[in-house]
Amino acid sequence: GSARFGLAYDESQADETRIEQRMRVNITGIAETDAGVKLEARFRLEANEDSHANDISGRGPGAAGFAVSYGGLRVDVGNVSNVLDSGDQVDYYGYGIGFTSFLEANSNFNGPATGFGADSKDFTTIKARYTVGDFSASVSYKETRAQAAVAVSPGVGGSLAVAADEEWQLGLGYTLANGMAIGAVYSDTDSAGDYWVLGLNGTAGAVGYTVMVGDGDNQQDVSVSASINYEVSSATSIRALVADGGVTGADTAYGLGFRHGLGGGVTLAGGVGSDSSGNTLADLGVSFSF
Amino acid sequence: GSARFGLAYDESQADETRIEQRMRVNITGIAETDAGVKLEARFRLEANEDSHANDISGRGPGAAGFAVSYGGLRVDVGNVSNVLDSGDQVDYYGYGIGFTSFLEANSNFNGPATGFGADSKDFTTIKARYTVGDFSASVSYKETRAQAAVAVSPGVGGSLAVAADEEWQLGLGYTLANGMAIGAVYSDTDSAGDYWVLGLNGTAGAVGYTVMVGDGDNQQDVSVSASINYEVSSATSIRALVADGGVTGADTAYGLGFRHGLGGGVTLAGGVGSDSSGNTLADLGVSFSF
Amino acid sequence: GSARFGLAYDESQADETRIEQRMRVNITGIAETDAGVKLEARFRLEANEDSHANDISGRGPGAAGFAVSYGGLRVDVGNVSNVLDSGDQVDYYGYGIGFTSFLEANSNFNGPATGFGADSKDFTTIKARYTVGDFSASVSYKETRAQAAVAVSPGVGGSLAVAADEEWQLGLGYTLANGMAIGAVYSDTDSAGDYWVLGLNGTAGAVGYTVMVGDGDNQQDVSVSASINYEVSSATSIRALVADGGVTGADTAYGLGFRHGLGGGVTLAGGVGSDSSGNTLADLGVSFSF
Repeated sequence: GSARFGLAYDESQADETRIEQRMRVNITGIAETDAGVKLEARFRLEANEDSHANDISGRGPGAAGFAVSYGGLRVDVGNVSNVLDSGDQVDYYGYGIGFTSFLEANSNFNGPATGFGADSKDFTTIKARYTVGDFSASVSYKETRAQAAVAVSPGVGGSLAVAADEEWQLGLGYTLANGMAIGAVYSDTDSAGDYWVLGLNGTAGAVGYTVMVGDGDNQQDVSVSASINYEVSSATSIRALVADGGVTGADTAYGLGFRHGLGGGVTLAGGVGSDSSGNTLADLGVSFSF
Repeated sequence: GSARFGLAYDESQADETRIEQRMRVNITGIAETDAGVKLEARFRLEANEDSHANDISGRGPGAAGFAVSYGGLRVDVGNVSNVLDSGDQVDYYGYGIGFTSFLEANSNFNGPATGFGADSKDFTTIKARYTVGDFSASVSYKETRAQAAVAVSPGVGGSLAVAADEEWQLGLGYTLANGMAIGAVYSDTDSAGDYWVLGLNGTAGAVGYTVMVGDGDNQQDVSVSASINYEVSSATSIRALVADGGVTGADTAYGLGFRHGLGGGVTLAGGVGSDSSGNTLADLGVSFSF
Repeated sequence: GSARFGLAYDESQADETRIEQRMRVNITGIAETDAGVKLEARFRLEANEDSHANDISGRGPGAAGFAVSYGGLRVDVGNVSNVLDSGDQVDYYGYGIGFTSFLEANSNFNGPATGFGADSKDFTTIKARYTVGDFSASVSYKETRAQAAVAVSPGVGGSLAVAADEEWQLGLGYTLANGMAIGAVYSDTDSAGDYWVLGLNGTAGAVGYTVMVGDGDNQQDVSVSASINYEVSSATSIRALVADGGVTGADTAYGLGFRHGLGGGVTLAGGVGSDSSGNTLADLGVSFSF
């Protein structure tokens, strides 16, 4: 599990400062056959602040995600990441700013990333990844089947109608001899058209970096981003991020943050930045794993 | 905990094939007094596919079940099985077909079986079982008290009115010297009248079998069923099931399945069959415990 | 975790006797920095009977509570106790009667105590406690920010409007050389005015005692209470409680109970009493921790 709390500032909110609060517990079951095939199942319990109004609540368990892995092959089923979210080939989120990662490399990208969480889903995702040497390929299929609306009645929360949709994603990645990884993800969704992302990331001494470019039918301009992490010492790092492009009128997003390890799995972190709507964001707090 | 996933087919559904997904975690607390009285409490977290429409979600913890046991006596209270569900005297479910047990021995029976789960209940069940030598007796009492309807309003999910109801069940069982167990359960529910079941089960070499007959005020014909399991090898078994009778117009239900242990608590299983409505069902998948 | 079950009687209910059922599991994450700062996060899963109508259900995880402690200082944030509930300086609940503590020392007090639980909250609480030698001081701040009402619609449970509110509490405590602790809590809530409580508690041989007096803008008469626990033997204790005052027309509340340890963390307990509305209450059951 993991937890974090601290202060977060968002210029766009009526109550600008909130007390950020999050606790996450993943419950994971693992089994391995005599032949070495590994099976996993997991779901998540989570508690958060609900908004900037100081209201707090817990939720979960969410829908479960399953995985089968054997040698270089891994198949995920259920409440699982699609290729773009998975980071299999492209690091879509880069080096996030602040202890809440309020700004990430995907800031000005409209890519259809779907991930695991403590919630329910209207769809089931299947993803397969195959790794051989320095090369990897992933493919995911996410199918939403049509559902009729359900009216609210005593004991029945009701739901809106769900439209059928299909999404295919393909990812290809290659790691160079110097450790630099290059990757591409192509996505085709019935409801939202095509999307493609090219990414590059690696480390050079104390510096880690990500560079990404992408575009799709759901945005007007090409999106670009770069993020960097510099290890000032064994405990302290500074990170910076910039992203631009996307929908018409989007602002350049940028941010600067730091992380400082306190030992025992505890990290003090914070940052300040501006998002693609031009709002100033900042945070400062601690996170820890257990 | 346990988990399973795979494919399930149901002819009666608009989307005939679903991706079966289930993860279950029972959280159990145990304490034992100096005098050797064992106390248990448990509740369940679970995630499932919700329907054949690919929607998935988690739920729980459900209501808790408690148990006190000492010597041959065990008392269960709360969200617990009644006598028919418990298997104390009659194996009401037999050898189920498929990795989801889509067809079980109770297929054509309308018996009032109530079990533990990740849900809430409108009633509280109390069951006592006493075992002495080869003989066992169980009695359960399930009381539903009247509740007024609650209207839906902001923050209140509402509920339908609950009618008062009472159910008594009595089970008697005896195990013969050759390991064959014979048992009977009698149930009397205010709202649904009488029900009785006679069962017989055991193993002979590589063969396990269950035979059951039952009838009640809520069905027109006597119900019968037989299920069999044959251990082909130490890892592989084949099972078959047939059930008939019940309500007017019910079809004969039958099925054939297999289970194959892969080691490490992982089982590959599948089956095909036809239910009491004449629909073809089939599944194939893996299950594992952790 | 902990669990309890048994019988509880309440004269004021239509169904006077209920089957008390409770199971609680706190999930706690702990980390400690190299400098010795301890961080904690926790949330709770819980199952209970819902009412005297035999309906039972589970809930949670609730909102999370966080804590940072270092030396004599401890700061709690989120779903946490305010000063009055915490027991830091005043034991607001004393020696409760019965295995469900159906009657506690705060019976005739209207003090604004807020605690941790398996539920969500409309507010966030921050409490700091500092202990130095025999002296301790605590201060808590609980802020509720205004929220607009949300209408019920499919998939949206809705909520009533929440009014802004602020509460400050200050507690001071001192422990005498003989172990007797004296403490005071002062509370100021925008919506409910002032409240103060003075308490005294300690042990003398086999006897434990609490005495408390309090008053506030939300009640007409000064409230007083005393509770006592007498250890008859190493396993068995008897406790008694009396409380009076509070709102106009409140009855004197009183009760008598016992606890008997059965070993292994199991306790048999029960009691009988009368609450501030003049209703007779009683219970008998077991509780255990695991």
